[in-house]
Amino acid sequence: MEFFAGKYDVIVVGAGHAGCEAALAAARMGCQTLLITLSLDNIAHMDCNPSLGGPAKGHLVREIDALGGQMAITADETSIQVRMLNTGKGPAVHALRIQSDKQAYHLNMLNVVMGQENLILHQAMVDRIKTEEGKVSGVVTRTGAFYAAPNVILTSGTYLRGRIIIGDAMYDGGPSGQQTAMSLSGELNALGLELGRFKTGTPPRIHRRSVDYSKFNIQPGDSVPWRYSFMPTQSMYWGQDVDKQCPCWLGYTTPETHKIIQDNIHRAPLYSGKIEGIGPRYCPSIEDKVVRFADRPSHQIFLEPEGWDSDELYVAGLSTSMPEEIQYEILHSVPGLEKAELLRPGYAIEYDYVKSHQLSLSLEVRKIPGLFTAGQLNGTSGYEEAAAQGLLAGINAALRIQGKEPFIVRRSEGYLGVLIDDLVNKGVKEPYRLLTSRAEYRLILRQDNADLRLTPRGREIGLVNDERWEAFQKKKEAISEIHALWRGTTFSPLNEQLAEVLASVNSAAVHGGISGEELMRRPEITINEIKQLMPQLAEYDEESLLEAGIEIKYAGYIEKQLAEIERFAKMEERLIPEEIVYDQIKGLSTEGRLRLKEVSPSNMGQATRITGVTPADISVLLVYLEQKRRGGQFHAT
Amino acid sequence: MEFFAGKYDVIVVGAGHAGCEAALAAARMGCQTLLITLSLDNIAHMDCNPSLGGPAKGHLVREIDALGGQMAITADETSIQVRMLNTGKGPAVHALRIQSDKQAYHLNMLNVVMGQENLILHQAMVDRIKTEEGKVSGVVTRTGAFYAAPNVILTSGTYLRGRIIIGDAMYDGGPSGQQTAMSLSGELNALGLELGRFKTGTPPRIHRRSVDYSKFNIQPGDSVPWRYSFMPTQSMYWGQDVDKQCPCWLGYTTPETHKIIQDNIHRAPLYSGKIEGIGPRYCPSIEDKVVRFADRPSHQIFLEPEGWDSDELYVAGLSTSMPEEIQYEILHSVPGLEKAELLRPGYAIEYDYVKSHQLSLSLEVRKIPGLFTAGQLNGTSGYEEAAAQGLLAGINAALRIQGKEPFIVRRSEGYLGVLIDDLVNKGVKEPYRLLTSRAEYRLILRQDNADLRLTPRGREIGLVNDERWEAFQKKKEAISEIHALWRGTTFSPLNEQLAEVLASVNSAAVHGGISGEELMRRPEITINEIKQLMPQLAEYDEESLLEAGIEIKYAGYIEKQLAEIERFAKMEERLIPEEIVYDQIKGLSTEGRLRLKEVSPSNMGQATRITGVTPADISVLLVYLEQKRRGGQFHAT
Ligand SMILES: Cc1cc2nc3c(=O)[nH]c(=O)nc-3n(C[C@H](O)[C@H](O)[C@H](O)COP(=O)(O)OP(=O)(O)OC[C@H]3O[C@@H](n4cnc5c(N)ncnc54)[C@H](O)[C@@H]3O)c2cc1C
Ligand SMILES: Cc1cc2nc3c(=O)[nH]c(=O)nc-3n(C[C@H](O)[C@H](O)[C@H](O)COP(=O)(O)OP(=O)(O)OC[C@H]3O[C@@H](n4cnc5c(N)ncnc54)[C@H](O)[C@@H]3O)c2cc1C
Repeated sequence: MEFFAGKYDVIVVGAGHAGCEAALAAARMGCQTLLITLSLDNIAHMDCNPSLGGPAKGHLVREIDALGGQMAITADETSIQVRMLNTGKGPAVHALRIQSDKQAYHLNMLNVVMGQENLILHQAMVDRIKTEEGKVSGVVTRTGAFYAAPNVILTSGTYLRGRIIIGDAMYDGGPSGQQTAMSLSGELNALGLELGRFKTGTPPRIHRRSVDYSKFNIQPGDSVPWRYSFMPTQSMYWGQDVDKQCPCWLGYTTPETHKIIQDNIHRAPLYSGKIEGIGPRYCPSIEDKVVRFADRPSHQIFLEPEGWDSDELYVAGLSTSMPEEIQYEILHSVPGLEKAELLRPGYAIEYDYVKSHQLSLSLEVRKIPGLFTAGQLNGTSGYEEAAAQGLLAGINAALRIQGKEPFIVRRSEGYLGVLIDDLVNKGVKEPYRLLTSRAEYRLILRQDNADLRLTPRGREIGLVNDERWEAFQKKKEAISEIHALWRGTTFSPLNEQLAEVLASVNSAAVHGGISGEELMRRPEITINEIKQLMPQLAEYDEESLLEAGIEIKYAGYIEKQLAEIERFAKMEERLIPEEIVYDQIKGLSTEGRLRLKEVSPSNMGQATRITGVTPADISVLLVYLEQKRRGGQFHAT
Repeated sequence: MEFFAGKYDVIVVGAGHAGCEAALAAARMGCQTLLITLSLDNIAHMDCNPSLGGPAKGHLVREIDALGGQMAITADETSIQVRMLNTGKGPAVHALRIQSDKQAYHLNMLNVVMGQENLILHQAMVDRIKTEEGKVSGVVTRTGAFYAAPNVILTSGTYLRGRIIIGDAMYDGGPSGQQTAMSLSGELNALGLELGRFKTGTPPRIHRRSVDYSKFNIQPGDSVPWRYSFMPTQSMYWGQDVDKQCPCWLGYTTPETHKIIQDNIHRAPLYSGKIEGIGPRYCPSIEDKVVRFADRPSHQIFLEPEGWDSDELYVAGLSTSMPEEIQYEILHSVPGLEKAELLRPGYAIEYDYVKSHQLSLSLEVRKIPGLFTAGQLNGTSGYEEAAAQGLLAGINAALRIQGKEPFIVRRSEGYLGVLIDDLVNKGVKEPYRLLTSRAEYRLILRQDNADLRLTPRGREIGLVNDERWEAFQKKKEAISEIHALWRGTTFSPLNEQLAEVLASVNSAAVHGGISGEELMRRPEITINEIKQLMPQLAEYDEESLLEAGIEIKYAGYIEKQLAEIERFAKMEERLIPEEIVYDQIKGLSTEGRLRLKEVSPSNMGQATRITGVTPADISVLLVYLEQKRRGGQFHAT
């Protein structure tokens, strides 16, 4: 029996990585928010590897933080190891990777969500989505509770008609032994949404004591206490004492491993036809790798602790859905894992996802105003991609309540923008993972400047709190003071210390005077050197110094990219003349035409953000406007 | 496809409270042990209240500790509040209650189990039990892994064909949102075991911030840092600083609450016929209480934190399976809970259990040598009852491997004995809960002397490690030294300090000399007083002093009970003449006769412990022996 259980501004279904960010954002922006999830014991659970980040993904985490999201802080506070990747390359691809204690990550997020004002948590299975006159009106749980809201954000991850596959064994189930949601897919179908089927997989977990570490290479954490957040966070485990971090261990598969897999490939669900869903290309299973790269004699394996003092190790690189007996053989064929105790077998999970071309850039389902979808449900893979979408969906649901324009991050503003734009305008054919190569403006979208790019925008929508805003202002001031200092300081060629410092890094001697700025342009001069020459820099924090340094060193490239961005933005800002008659434009979709007529957008940017207007409609419109302009029919825009 | 996945001495199915003790005991006694459970994230999960103990249950925890079990240590280390109950009454019913941090309890036990030598952990669903020639030979998991072992201990709790009920909503599921085990019941049936159906329930959980505490009475912890273990444990949260403990809160239901329930009683699954299973009489639901005690205007409610800094509160006293909307109304009718946020609704769970008369006193299934069952699966209710059975099953499986006699605790030796004897010889008609009233020898079975009663027995079977054994020896020595001191010290009637101390507690003045022992016999003289008179007592620990004191004060009663026990034990030790011809005894069960002939027990005690010999067979045998003895046909036994 159905009963009315309360009215909210925003309801979020699912408290995974997407759902937590969505609910926190909406609540922090002042909306009465309800977060419903299957189990409170499983909030923000990391179903796969116990770490966040790496290229592009790490960038996302920084951007989430810059906007006032939660993931970065929780990752920092529960970190057991930090590593900056790609430091040999340019700053655009420097990428932080943080391993967290899985259990602590969950508990930290649980506490944050529980403690959030305006946010009510409730454990339940959502079975139905209610609409009224085509718009979302709320959800109904398995126990008959009807919660009303004009905005519903679905973030149900891999739970829709989840199916676990381990060799010949197949059964209904969610990830990590959870229940699965069998009703929601049908509901979405009934609402006219097109679903697809993907799969993903996870490696076995083994017991720490069962490893022969002498056959692995130790991988300690970095000697810098990196963090994701722009705010002053630190690990609950090692604080600032980098030597205390947990190490990981690097090993390799062998030809024997590969032979075991090849000999049993007919039993791999992936190849025996048991799995219909398409898997993630960038997180392939070991059987996938062995088949696709048949000539490779070995693949890397990382043993990663699942927690600060957990006995469980995650065997990164060995994702598999082979039968359990083959999993034993595969493990035991790896040098050092001869006696590995299998705590949990690897498995694959197949699940329904929402085809993302049906969404607008605000992550609202075009056909159903008020229904948002975010996270793995939209066909992505990865905690960071999920959280990023959750944050944006939460923000946009809140803005919708406030009657404001959607919040869209451009491709030139952040990886957040690249992610959403790819999903909506390109759609996905396999589980989508963000990569730096997907971004056009990599030199602009650095991890170090995520705050400079996005914190003002987060402040504008009310998500960046005073504390963060003040810290941000201070950093900005610091950067401009540093620039002023560098510009304003000239060193005489006779300065002995200068000569010494230059010699120490093999930098050419100077013959005329040289400014601090000119010095910093030299690639070999780092913050270290300039600080020796300008003791007054000591009062500035490392981050501001680094930022100012990068801005100088890469100024040329950065300007070039900014010019490109400008050109593209101009297109987007192109005005649409009031006298336009949409009925005269051939090739518009029926719904697009209708919505354009209703809204009468004043520029192309606004047109792209109208629910119901497809990317194809936008192309048609642009071509039409250009033709008319050339024909002199409209004034130049 | 089935594959061979290893051979063990003992396999334990289920890592709840029973399973963890069983596996630890078997492994600590040197058996190669495998513990298989549905989810490693759920080990030793407290599905209901976040606390252990109270009368009888607290005694069990002490006894588990005395034998070298784990529950007491884990409870102590994760405790957030301790209270000694019934301190106004005699020492026999003093009972400790400890609230634990639910999450920490799980993690602590997980770490212990993971770290245990000889113990392998594995996450899987056991679907089948294998037998060979009527004896257990192993188990098969859902993924086809066959684990071989001559001993299997089933501790699957409420998971067998679990069914969740919340008002009109009913669905298959395990407790706390877990999956349920649908196959095992059928397996047990096929093995010829008789199953029944019980139900149990749990109250709603609410958000800490949503309570008006001014309408509740605060319930702080005790000012003594009590602990369960006889070893020196302490809370990871408050150490010895008793002021830091978490408080609970006491409130009451109102006539309005009861009216809501009565008005909706037709929708209570318990009364609408939806629930077939029989519920626990001693943990009734609120609807049960309202119906059964219709004249009571209110019932107590305790708000208990689920953890040290958890925002979740357990609403003790409000266990219910009413529809969720009625749960809201019930909660909001309680003064102080008008605005309670419902985090998780209360629910009932129905499940299959094994009828316990089919077991021997070693918890082995009579019909199936090597198959043990323990915990809620045997029709009990409560963490402590489950753990106690698990411990005994683990011990007995290990002894079976070693070819030794089963380990049986007598009713006169411990609540452990009362529990098992009740289960096996009386059977259960409703979820069984241990109560002090079930014990005949309460004055002997005190919580303070659990170690004196059982630690030597635990040492004998190899479960009590050296550290615990040394501590125990020291305590025993201390007690006898204290007794010697008391006996050996005589106070002169002229001793002024004596007069003062006696006066301070209104104790009669002495006229002749008086020994320390005589003084201690006086009810009003406590350790406190005697310590003032005998400063040399300061070197003994409180526990030994208390113990010695109780031994003196209750010596008369204790001796009487000991005499009774002696009489009963004599019967049990009665020898069975070698010339007995079982075929001549009428009334023996077919199987019992067979087994008695096979084993030829030399005394009644041994006869009771033979798998296949029922309590009825024992009665028949006793009567027969008595008749023969009276008839002079056998020598006196
Ligand atoms: C087996 C496996 C392997 C993976 N491997 C990788 C990998 O190698 N690399 C990588 O980057 N990513 C991997 N991932 C992906 C990553 O774990 C997910 O992308 C990420 O967790 C998705 O976050 P989410 O918030 O979208 O969904 P989830 O974290 O899955 O959260 C979904 C939430 O919705 C709740 N929910 C679902 N249905 C309902 C309902 N009807 N009512 C109420 N609540 C509901 C659930 O309880 C859960 O809390 C893997 C995931 C799995 C399961
Ligand atoms: C809703 C509810 C309310 C309760 N209320 C009370 C109360 O008010 N008072 C009270 O004293 N007690 C109460 N209890 C009882 C108490 O929680 C249990 O008695 C205690 O947890 C039982 O311990 P156990 O070890 O027997 O089973 P559990 O703790 O339930 O553990 C069973 C274990 O077996 C595993 N398992 C099950 N099937 C399989 C399989 N096929 N393969 C592998 N693993 C399997 C599970 O994963 C689990 O780890 C309640 C329990 C529930 C569920």
